[in-house]
Amino acid sequence: MAKQKKQPRPKAETPKGFRDYFGAEVTERAEMLQKIAQVYHLYGFEALESSAVETVEALGKFLPDVDRPNEGVFAWQEDTEGDKPGDWLALRYDLTAPLARVYAQHRNDLPTPYRRYAMGPVWRNEKPGPGRYRQFYQCDADTVGAPSVAADAEICAMLADTLEQVGIPRGDYIVRVNNRKVLNGVLEVMGLDEGAARDAVLRTIDKFDKVGESGVRELLGKGRLDASGAYIDGVGLSDEQAGPVLAFLTSKSDSAAQTLENLRAAVGDSVVGLEGVQELETISNLLAAQGYGPDRIVIDPSVVRGLGYYTGPVFEAELTFEIFDEKGRKRQFGSVAGGGRYDDLVKRFTGQAVPATGVSIGVDRLLAALREKGRIGGTVPGPVVVTVMDRDRMAEYQDMVGELRRAGIRAEVYLGNPKNFGNQMKYADRRGSPVAVIAGSDEFDRGVVQIKDLILGAKIAENATLEEWKERPSQFEVPRAQLVEKLRDMLDGQDQ
Amino acid sequence: MAKQKKQPRPKAETPKGFRDYFGAEVTERAEMLQKIAQVYHLYGFEALESSAVETVEALGKFLPDVDRPNEGVFAWQEDTEGDKPGDWLALRYDLTAPLARVYAQHRNDLPTPYRRYAMGPVWRNEKPGPGRYRQFYQCDADTVGAPSVAADAEICAMLADTLEQVGIPRGDYIVRVNNRKVLNGVLEVMGLDEGAARDAVLRTIDKFDKVGESGVRELLGKGRLDASGAYIDGVGLSDEQAGPVLAFLTSKSDSAAQTLENLRAAVGDSVVGLEGVQELETISNLLAAQGYGPDRIVIDPSVVRGLGYYTGPVFEAELTFEIFDEKGRKRQFGSVAGGGRYDDLVKRFTGQAVPATGVSIGVDRLLAALREKGRIGGTVPGPVVVTVMDRDRMAEYQDMVGELRRAGIRAEVYLGNPKNFGNQMKYADRRGSPVAVIAGSDEFDRGVVQIKDLILGAKIAENATLEEWKERPSQFEVPRAQLVEKLRDMLDGQDQ
Repeated sequence: MAKQKKQPRPKAETPKGFRDYFGAEVTERAEMLQKIAQVYHLYGFEALESSAVETVEALGKFLPDVDRPNEGVFAWQEDTEGDKPGDWLALRYDLTAPLARVYAQHRNDLPTPYRRYAMGPVWRNEKPGPGRYRQFYQCDADTVGAPSVAADAEICAMLADTLEQVGIPRGDYIVRVNNRKVLNGVLEVMGLDEGAARDAVLRTIDKFDKVGESGVRELLGKGRLDASGAYIDGVGLSDEQAGPVLAFLTSKSDSAAQTLENLRAAVGDSVVGLEGVQELETISNLLAAQGYGPDRIVIDPSVVRGLGYYTGPVFEAELTFEIFDEKGRKRQFGSVAGGGRYDDLVKRFTGQAVPATGVSIGVDRLLAALREKGRIGGTVPGPVVVTVMDRDRMAEYQDMVGELRRAGIRAEVYLGNPKNFGNQMKYADRRGSPVAVIAGSDEFDRGVVQIKDLILGAKIAENATLEEWKERPSQFEVPRAQLVEKLRDMLDGQDQ
Repeated sequence: MAKQKKQPRPKAETPKGFRDYFGAEVTERAEMLQKIAQVYHLYGFEALESSAVETVEALGKFLPDVDRPNEGVFAWQEDTEGDKPGDWLALRYDLTAPLARVYAQHRNDLPTPYRRYAMGPVWRNEKPGPGRYRQFYQCDADTVGAPSVAADAEICAMLADTLEQVGIPRGDYIVRVNNRKVLNGVLEVMGLDEGAARDAVLRTIDKFDKVGESGVRELLGKGRLDASGAYIDGVGLSDEQAGPVLAFLTSKSDSAAQTLENLRAAVGDSVVGLEGVQELETISNLLAAQGYGPDRIVIDPSVVRGLGYYTGPVFEAELTFEIFDEKGRKRQFGSVAGGGRYDDLVKRFTGQAVPATGVSIGVDRLLAALREKGRIGGTVPGPVVVTVMDRDRMAEYQDMVGELRRAGIRAEVYLGNPKNFGNQMKYADRRGSPVAVIAGSDEFDRGVVQIKDLILGAKIAENATLEEWKERPSQFEVPRAQLVEKLRDMLDGQDQ
């Protein structure tokens, strides 16, 4: 007989750049998102869950000008229907582009302003790297249709409240506020309203985070030798010409009043610049009146991230406590959220400019920070495991876990092959079970159960003296009727 | 000057078959999933969130034997790297195929048995229809690596607990249990171990839900005139030959013992059939011992859904209360969850058969049922809206909402253009706000605020007598210092 050709076995792997999340990784994120949602809700924001799949046309940034619009998104073409070629569809790459589509689509049914929050995965078709995944969570809140900077101030206050709510103590974070209009004013007084030089200056400002004041000064001038030894050509401005940009970037002072004074000087008589300074002043005053002082929210023109994208106020939340980076150097934890005002969000759909402002929290970064602070990631105890000594007693074992569950105690019967008792204890160990319950014929006859304290057991095995060992044995017997009561006492205070 | 060619505006639409979820639709689902997760957790199951994107190879059912594997899934090909053609990737179409991949990939690090729950969207590339979407939620719990039917019994008990936990009262649901092995035994005694006739009988059984006993009898025999008037050819069995199948399907009796007796008669001396009956008996006994009587879980061989897919016990949860269908006819609400044992889950990856059993809850159906029962979907009140009478007082209005929020009261300042006061009240109305707070210069001078009870206002406008109107005015004045206290009293008992 001819041997049947076998299909090779499929590889059991996630696609490159994707990963699975297990146990506490899932529940800790869910709990954090729930806390964030509570704050957003309290502020009057409504939940929105848009579809994960959008037309490439609606996502906008990635129009199919090539055969396949695969720049940065996961996209595919729908089947042809009759003569009509199928639409290109794509997974959303953030939560802002879908908001624009949703608002444009449903604007007649939505209140104005429309305040919404959204949380969920987004997908990027990018080269994955260490710690860089192609699916990750975002958590956004936006106010659409509110022209007043009171909406921006509110987003900043809400961001501060949110960070404290999830477990970042006051003093360990700072929300920094800048304004694109002020920068526009600065560029205006420099005579850089548009053109290549303006773009070069904007690109240079973007590097301020990395190269600092002296770096930006060099890059605005003749150029700079970078860390790799390469020479980066400069924009070619004289020191005097570059002055207003540097004045802008370094205008932060100890008091908001002084910072605003410095900014006013930097924008000279630029109308848009002065409007920007005025907006920052309004935000500062509104926040101060509500008690959000500079220990929580500050005007800080050195915040450059997103300045190219936003059209008005820009905000960023940074965590200020120190961690050790992968090279063992101390550094600040850094940014966990950012946002700002973007007034052209809906225009490409409707032709009408609609003011909008919002914030996006980097969920994974914030989770990492909470782990760093020890706020989450402690050992989550596994279930109480009722072992199976006598497989004919399964109903009685199930009865025990039923009782425990009704008392709110997480519990299960060992459901693998019960033949090897060692495997049952290994299982309990692998689950991180605090307690194993053991009962065979002898125990059933005498109306008792054995309770094995696995946490204490592990501790004793590690470092107990003989006296301690004797004093508090890690295994003991209780009447069956006292099982629930006894376990409740033992587990009291544990996060069940 | 040549007129610049304009790009047409993109359409603001979800792709066909997708939709957005707003406000309570999102939060009600989240709350229900959280309640389900609590039960699963209590039973010792661990959360798992696998990536939404899988390789088509790992998903299995949809191998790329055509140019593009678009049968039922959304799939696309990764970019070519060098000479290597890119992998085909796809959105998961359920949560079971990813579980198989995860277990095969991580089996050395996972406990055995591995008990996991998962909840999230899945995607189907199918023709959308009314109420049929291409993205929807599933919520699964599975036990992998437990050969004992105690694991199946536990899933049934957990399913009953879950339904009660989310708000389906006992008596309004029933979990039915069947067993594929019993059917195999019936087919064996009929001499239908394999072949076309066996497949035809299996397909016919699948129609039992729709055509009932007499329909199946006709279809197993000569054939049947269906509702549309078309004649459906039958399998061609004699009445005598078809007997065991019908005996199996109609074997349910008032007592589990009698049902099992009937099944034993139907399978004759088939070893696999008797094994199946024995499994049902064990499940029945285990559940009875824990108090899950036939008012909650029954052995019912008329459950045919999934019998073709599963390899052992099969379960289905049905809601038994009546609703009116789209044609105004009374009918039972029907199925909201199903599952069973499938012992070949991991085999295609590893070559090793791994026993597994689990359940999948149809999240949207269950939500619809809860709405039908009035358990969710009541009016969710909007935030207290503090109106803006004087835009220079923004800090003071913000101060009011800050105070309210700190007291746990959902509140916001109106952030649209405050010029038209009517728009502010329209906004409060559209948000479903219970209360609007109004304060202009006069109120600030006198240290008071006006409180407008919008819910009472709406009621009064509808049907109040003049006396009632006078007795409890819908707008009144309180000292500013009593704002929080007064609103707390008014909103007490409301779901904030």
